[in-house]
Amino acid sequence: MTTSTDKTWSPLFKEPVSADFRDFHECLDQDKRIALHDVAGSRVHADMLARAGIISPADNEAIQGGLAAIAREMREGTFAWKKELEDVHMNVEQRLTDLVGDAGKRLHTARSRNDQNATDIRLYARDELDALAGEIKVLIASFVDLAEQHPATIMPGFTHLQVAQPITFGHHLMAYAEMFLRDLERVGQARGRLNVSPLGAAALAGSGYPIDPEYSAQALGFAGVCHNSLDAVSDRDYICDIANAGALIMVHLSRFCEEVIMWCTPMFDFIEVGDQFCTGSSIMPQKRNPDLAELVRGKAARVIGNLSFAVTLNKNLPLAFNKDQQECKPPLTDTLETTRGAVSVVAQMIRTIKVHKDKMLAAADKGYSTATDLADYLVRAGLPFRDAHHAVAAIVGLARERGLGTLSQLALADMRRFASVIGDDVYQVLTVEGSVASRNHTGGTAPGQVHRQIARVRAMLARPSTHL
Amino acid sequence: MTTSTDKTWSPLFKEPVSADFRDFHECLDQDKRIALHDVAGSRVHADMLARAGIISPADNEAIQGGLAAIAREMREGTFAWKKELEDVHMNVEQRLTDLVGDAGKRLHTARSRNDQNATDIRLYARDELDALAGEIKVLIASFVDLAEQHPATIMPGFTHLQVAQPITFGHHLMAYAEMFLRDLERVGQARGRLNVSPLGAAALAGSGYPIDPEYSAQALGFAGVCHNSLDAVSDRDYICDIANAGALIMVHLSRFCEEVIMWCTPMFDFIEVGDQFCTGSSIMPQKRNPDLAELVRGKAARVIGNLSFAVTLNKNLPLAFNKDQQECKPPLTDTLETTRGAVSVVAQMIRTIKVHKDKMLAAADKGYSTATDLADYLVRAGLPFRDAHHAVAAIVGLARERGLGTLSQLALADMRRFASVIGDDVYQVLTVEGSVASRNHTGGTAPGQVHRQIARVRAMLARPSTHL
Amino acid sequence: MTTSTDKTWSPLFKEPVSADFRDFHECLDQDKRIALHDVAGSRVHADMLARAGIISPADNEAIQGGLAAIAREMREGTFAWKKELEDVHMNVEQRLTDLVGDAGKRLHTARSRNDQNATDIRLYARDELDALAGEIKVLIASFVDLAEQHPATIMPGFTHLQVAQPITFGHHLMAYAEMFLRDLERVGQARGRLNVSPLGAAALAGSGYPIDPEYSAQALGFAGVCHNSLDAVSDRDYICDIANAGALIMVHLSRFCEEVIMWCTPMFDFIEVGDQFCTGSSIMPQKRNPDLAELVRGKAARVIGNLSFAVTLNKNLPLAFNKDQQECKPPLTDTLETTRGAVSVVAQMIRTIKVHKDKMLAAADKGYSTATDLADYLVRAGLPFRDAHHAVAAIVGLARERGLGTLSQLALADMRRFASVIGDDVYQVLTVEGSVASRNHTGGTAPGQVHRQIARVRAMLARPSTHL
Amino acid sequence: MTTSTDKTWSPLFKEPVSADFRDFHECLDQDKRIALHDVAGSRVHADMLARAGIISPADNEAIQGGLAAIAREMREGTFAWKKELEDVHMNVEQRLTDLVGDAGKRLHTARSRNDQNATDIRLYARDELDALAGEIKVLIASFVDLAEQHPATIMPGFTHLQVAQPITFGHHLMAYAEMFLRDLERVGQARGRLNVSPLGAAALAGSGYPIDPEYSAQALGFAGVCHNSLDAVSDRDYICDIANAGALIMVHLSRFCEEVIMWCTPMFDFIEVGDQFCTGSSIMPQKRNPDLAELVRGKAARVIGNLSFAVTLNKNLPLAFNKDQQECKPPLTDTLETTRGAVSVVAQMIRTIKVHKDKMLAAADKGYSTATDLADYLVRAGLPFRDAHHAVAAIVGLARERGLGTLSQLALADMRRFASVIGDDVYQVLTVEGSVASRNHTGGTAPGQVHRQIARVRAMLARPSTHL
Repeated sequence: MTTSTDKTWSPLFKEPVSADFRDFHECLDQDKRIALHDVAGSRVHADMLARAGIISPADNEAIQGGLAAIAREMREGTFAWKKELEDVHMNVEQRLTDLVGDAGKRLHTARSRNDQNATDIRLYARDELDALAGEIKVLIASFVDLAEQHPATIMPGFTHLQVAQPITFGHHLMAYAEMFLRDLERVGQARGRLNVSPLGAAALAGSGYPIDPEYSAQALGFAGVCHNSLDAVSDRDYICDIANAGALIMVHLSRFCEEVIMWCTPMFDFIEVGDQFCTGSSIMPQKRNPDLAELVRGKAARVIGNLSFAVTLNKNLPLAFNKDQQECKPPLTDTLETTRGAVSVVAQMIRTIKVHKDKMLAAADKGYSTATDLADYLVRAGLPFRDAHHAVAAIVGLARERGLGTLSQLALADMRRFASVIGDDVYQVLTVEGSVASRNHTGGTAPGQVHRQIARVRAMLARPSTHL
Repeated sequence: MTTSTDKTWSPLFKEPVSADFRDFHECLDQDKRIALHDVAGSRVHADMLARAGIISPADNEAIQGGLAAIAREMREGTFAWKKELEDVHMNVEQRLTDLVGDAGKRLHTARSRNDQNATDIRLYARDELDALAGEIKVLIASFVDLAEQHPATIMPGFTHLQVAQPITFGHHLMAYAEMFLRDLERVGQARGRLNVSPLGAAALAGSGYPIDPEYSAQALGFAGVCHNSLDAVSDRDYICDIANAGALIMVHLSRFCEEVIMWCTPMFDFIEVGDQFCTGSSIMPQKRNPDLAELVRGKAARVIGNLSFAVTLNKNLPLAFNKDQQECKPPLTDTLETTRGAVSVVAQMIRTIKVHKDKMLAAADKGYSTATDLADYLVRAGLPFRDAHHAVAAIVGLARERGLGTLSQLALADMRRFASVIGDDVYQVLTVEGSVASRNHTGGTAPGQVHRQIARVRAMLARPSTHL
Repeated sequence: MTTSTDKTWSPLFKEPVSADFRDFHECLDQDKRIALHDVAGSRVHADMLARAGIISPADNEAIQGGLAAIAREMREGTFAWKKELEDVHMNVEQRLTDLVGDAGKRLHTARSRNDQNATDIRLYARDELDALAGEIKVLIASFVDLAEQHPATIMPGFTHLQVAQPITFGHHLMAYAEMFLRDLERVGQARGRLNVSPLGAAALAGSGYPIDPEYSAQALGFAGVCHNSLDAVSDRDYICDIANAGALIMVHLSRFCEEVIMWCTPMFDFIEVGDQFCTGSSIMPQKRNPDLAELVRGKAARVIGNLSFAVTLNKNLPLAFNKDQQECKPPLTDTLETTRGAVSVVAQMIRTIKVHKDKMLAAADKGYSTATDLADYLVRAGLPFRDAHHAVAAIVGLARERGLGTLSQLALADMRRFASVIGDDVYQVLTVEGSVASRNHTGGTAPGQVHRQIARVRAMLARPSTHL
Repeated sequence: MTTSTDKTWSPLFKEPVSADFRDFHECLDQDKRIALHDVAGSRVHADMLARAGIISPADNEAIQGGLAAIAREMREGTFAWKKELEDVHMNVEQRLTDLVGDAGKRLHTARSRNDQNATDIRLYARDELDALAGEIKVLIASFVDLAEQHPATIMPGFTHLQVAQPITFGHHLMAYAEMFLRDLERVGQARGRLNVSPLGAAALAGSGYPIDPEYSAQALGFAGVCHNSLDAVSDRDYICDIANAGALIMVHLSRFCEEVIMWCTPMFDFIEVGDQFCTGSSIMPQKRNPDLAELVRGKAARVIGNLSFAVTLNKNLPLAFNKDQQECKPPLTDTLETTRGAVSVVAQMIRTIKVHKDKMLAAADKGYSTATDLADYLVRAGLPFRDAHHAVAAIVGLARERGLGTLSQLALADMRRFASVIGDDVYQVLTVEGSVASRNHTGGTAPGQVHRQIARVRAMLARPSTHL
């Protein structure tokens, strides 16, 4: 067994910590992400201590100066991280003490790493969620901008990947705008729930000093204070909320990417994605793969794994804090970073999409996509819907038997064999344009409705608030 | 291969559906849960059709009568489910047509099973979430009621399952009230997000009839209409939201149950759970196992599995509807039923808990739980916290060496060897009662703070709204 | 709180079990699946007790008769299950005592429900794995039979869903045979690992009676005895092994089903699936959806959820038995039943597939699928591969610019602009037939290799053993 | 959108790859782990090409020299990784070409990154599994060594965390040896399944060159060749096998660590863990937390998340290769590294455990742990077991009422009230030593059986093979 030569925890510890154990629980890589939040939290804590008379104004001044210097070192990359000091908190306190002496040793008064760390993660997550929300808005705008170019571009609408009914491409794109609007709401609600301050909970029971948790909360921009100190140090629910929001964002992206990948095969050939987001092959010279779209699908599995990780981690943990919870950080940071990255690059990719309208239109005519319109025609002529449905199925059967690609290729007489009410005007309802135009109500695929959807979403994006 | 002898789908189908396939995709058991919602939705749909002039008043009257009769049959258990009709929708339409003739065949005008089913699930989920929210409130009340009996009952507060600082049992219980208040918020937000009407989206593109989706939405109590028909029929996000909320509820229950299980071992012996929630052993006559608490931990894994299931299901699915999404129902219904059941029985179990105050108090004195108070004493005497921490660790080391269970058993002179500022008054700060009383700020463990927390939560529970 | 009126556990229990709790932990539905295994295990246990002189021959005879009668009742559906007796074990013991009196009360000597239940589940799982293995063999045979009809049927091979190189359909199908052969091995290894007997471990520590665990193991067909009684009653690893094998089986099915779904769109139109495994639409008369394939994809998510459930359940559980482990059964039974059902119906579906060779061939020629062959041609003419790759990419670029669908439509002179070594014979290497024929080594797509693969797999399937 | 200035993929690409996309799909960190395996695979590939006459002996010699130099650079840390070259394969080929010119451009003949990468991962995983197996053996040895010191050390055996029956500590430890022996088998089977060579599959269809895949396989130590090229490039099953094995290893460690944590609370105080694996508190001077044990529990959630990730990733992927599969590496490498680390540090921790025999023994006497022995006594005296069980429960009830901690504190007369057959000799069967000694059969807790278990496991560990 390798053992380190570092100082032990306290006089209670006779043996130094095992170097292998230290390597195993090393989390500096995670901690660097929260380092500046840690310093910011410490500055507010010191201010609070001074205001409450727990430390002297002079000590506070020294601490503020020292912490400002440390923040500078971190930003400039000159801060000397020491692995043997275990975590960011100990690194900062040690450096502070080196810089300002005994005042540094007073910073940790009325505080524990438990409430300190809980505060840091919340500050970090809050910032990241704000950034994520911003990227989601950009993504929605990408969908809206592309939809605006295609309010009347006709494509086949699929259910079960079979041609169902003709729809407009703009309408299809706006379905994704709806999904990401929900995600934006989720992100905002996760943010709202985490935005309370654990500072003051100390180790788990609160502090015996005359502290002012409300001051610290307000100074750090929290909406309030945690109402129970045990909960304050052990709550990591928000990581699950974030992982759930992240997983749904990635699921939505994966659905779109699945479509992009199919639309790019020569069999569909509906769109082309810009070179910037494709890759070639090391062996096949002709290849141009929609690589990004596939990678995003793969990253969706990653975030789903993070969700599993985060929820499972907290199962069965007794109050208050347990070391298991250190492992909450990786699923949090990985989810936020992966999700933000994916949202951002997909938004960019969308702007490079070239649409093959002719291919979309031709495909929309396949698969007897206006059969429902024919059934509706029969209903208007008096048939109950279920009987109309049955008659049209028989007509489709005939067309299929004869190898006809569309219903309008059938002669009137052939159709009338199955429903005598059919007249000459039937050929109008069989056009894909007519089909699309007729679905003209809230949520429908008619071009006018696409414009309404776009206007609604643009108005939502224009609101000043980050999170809707 | 076994094939059924039932009618085929339409004249397009020459072969009957495989009986094995029918068994494999059978979902009547799931569908029965939404049957009454399905009928209610159909009644509103028929009203809308009649108001819009799409069906005649007479047909609507016939349909309303038929559906009322069907609902009665369902409630009375006399409705004859037919497996070969695949799902609830086809069962109801067929029965309706048997009852009222051609009018029944008109019910499905301007509608598809896609929007119909999406509507049914949302109505079901909304009702279940309301019921769940009600049970959570009862659970919170159980915690609060027990806490109210123990605002000053002292127990050891643990971190890392080591004795950390003395806390009050009421404070400990109120930590769970906080968790379940967050869950109540989650449940309410999931409800809010799903409470829009997909009716009118039809198969995927909307309907060519002059329908009025806003009327249907309002009549069914939805807050609005889905703004995109493709999204309306394919969105199952809310199932993930519900699964996430359910998983967190179960995680919180699992944390409490873990503690109940430990508190019930003879090693802790802090509490006793009522016979009603314990089981014996088939072989060991003396056994009295806190069975429910363990089972709830196990059920937490079940709901975590449902979350994984629900999220994974939707990954990579192209628009709009795919049969995969039928499998969304099992994780939804299982999560709602398991979670509601668990919340309800744990609330009942809490009311049977007997507290062994003496054991809790004795344990609180173990593990040098007031060492932090001693360090704070030294800080008040002028030492920087870090130095005070170090001195106290040495004092603890001495007590441990001598086999003394508490710091107050040390002589003053022994303590002064490590910190000469220690005076006679030190013994006061070493009491667990003093320690607890001193943590008297928002969120702290002092009895007065426990009372404040209780008052706050009682006020929240008293609000009329179901979901906070 | 509702309480039941049933007998309590033992004189130690003053209050009857809560009816709500009983409903919550009810598992008779699960237990019915292992009921006959339970009876079989009890018969062996009684024999062992008699052989060891722990019960009398007369008692054993009475027990054997009673248990035989109970098994008969179970098979005939006349066994009267009593919910208030909690589980199968108590139901059987009670019924046995009703039938044969005091001898029935002696059955549980030297045994606990812990080892009894662990034995039952293993017997159940072993039987189910054998049945599953049988179905997998049938599935593999379906792939092989179809492959045998298509050793030289040319289709496009895809990577990144872009046309990569021409392959044979038989080769494509045989890739799935490989996957399911691995699954068969997994199933066999899971079976091997669980096939040891926990009987004799009693509650957790073994028994103080002179029992003969080796006899019981051998009589029940186990390969050996668990070597540690604590492990024997708490080991549920094999459920994770089964869930992992099940998840991979479902993942493999989902991959194939994804392809079936795509091949069935009008855009691909490579195959048709029999009516027996398709469904229509309630609104769109023309629809014919490959429903089974989609449902299987959805069920894959279900089994993945089960895997998560099973693994998570066991995390953090102290030795030996905890009630959480009762919840191990649902993921086990659901995985085995879902997986077996899916394997069986997909095998049937495969036999109804009609192949559109013309569409496959036409598609294989798209996307410049023989570009790699051209690069290899240049290598044979002396160019380093990387340079050849580059030259061919430029040639493809030219073809694309000119809107030519295949490289063979380019004039020789045009190609020579990028690589002067190209001669007249180049057009031969550009055929899809030539490309396929040239990949003639172990694992390659050439028709002869497909035949070799088929022969190899047929030989494996012909082996008498169930599990390879 | 930021775009990079690097060379594009081929002349087909007009736009450089997006820098943001490149950052998003960057995997050099992952690729560095397989870099030496990549070089080793390339050396064998070049040898094969030369032996088959596909490249010249001179080219092969140049390539071998270049690759040897590259391997040296990698080992010495001087290899200059270029992010813009995307992955390890392109980095190596480019560097090789820089070193040896045109011969370097010939290396990729008859090969694709698809089969190359698949080969590299398998080589990496094989090495890591061997190392993991070695660590598991060390871990098992730690358990065995500690067990050997405690074959007769009595502790309470728990079920439902209630005292069940007395057991020996050595027996308890050996339960873990059993679990990890199963894990060793799992690791070996995962290794066996992945140990076939994909080299020769090229992009997906095999190669048109006269390659010799059997030679490459043998030279790289594979047991055979993949029998289907499509499967060869798309199979990532083994990552799920490894993740499943890893998850179970971590679950087993989490179970042990849960016990270590409980045993270390002052309430149990059964053991002490060495300072090297504990941490202190920043605020509470007395704290000594069994930190490692908690962290391992947390890391178990991480690996469970990896399992979810790996399985989900492969769902619904069509053949043959898709970019999603690049994301297979993180769950693989993280699982192998986390699991190996955890196994290794826990093995070290075990060696620092100090056992408090007195506390264990005292606890074993609590909770009426010999009640089953009393019931068995009554059975030997002629009572049916079920009646004996009932009588003993009543006796326990009396002891509990009187506040007596053990049954032996009851007077004979008091016991005889419930079962008149009880004689003076009953006090012998009530001792924990007698109870333990009586469980003397395969798997039982008697000291002699513990010795048998130890001998069996030692013999298994002594076998030369790495994997059992």
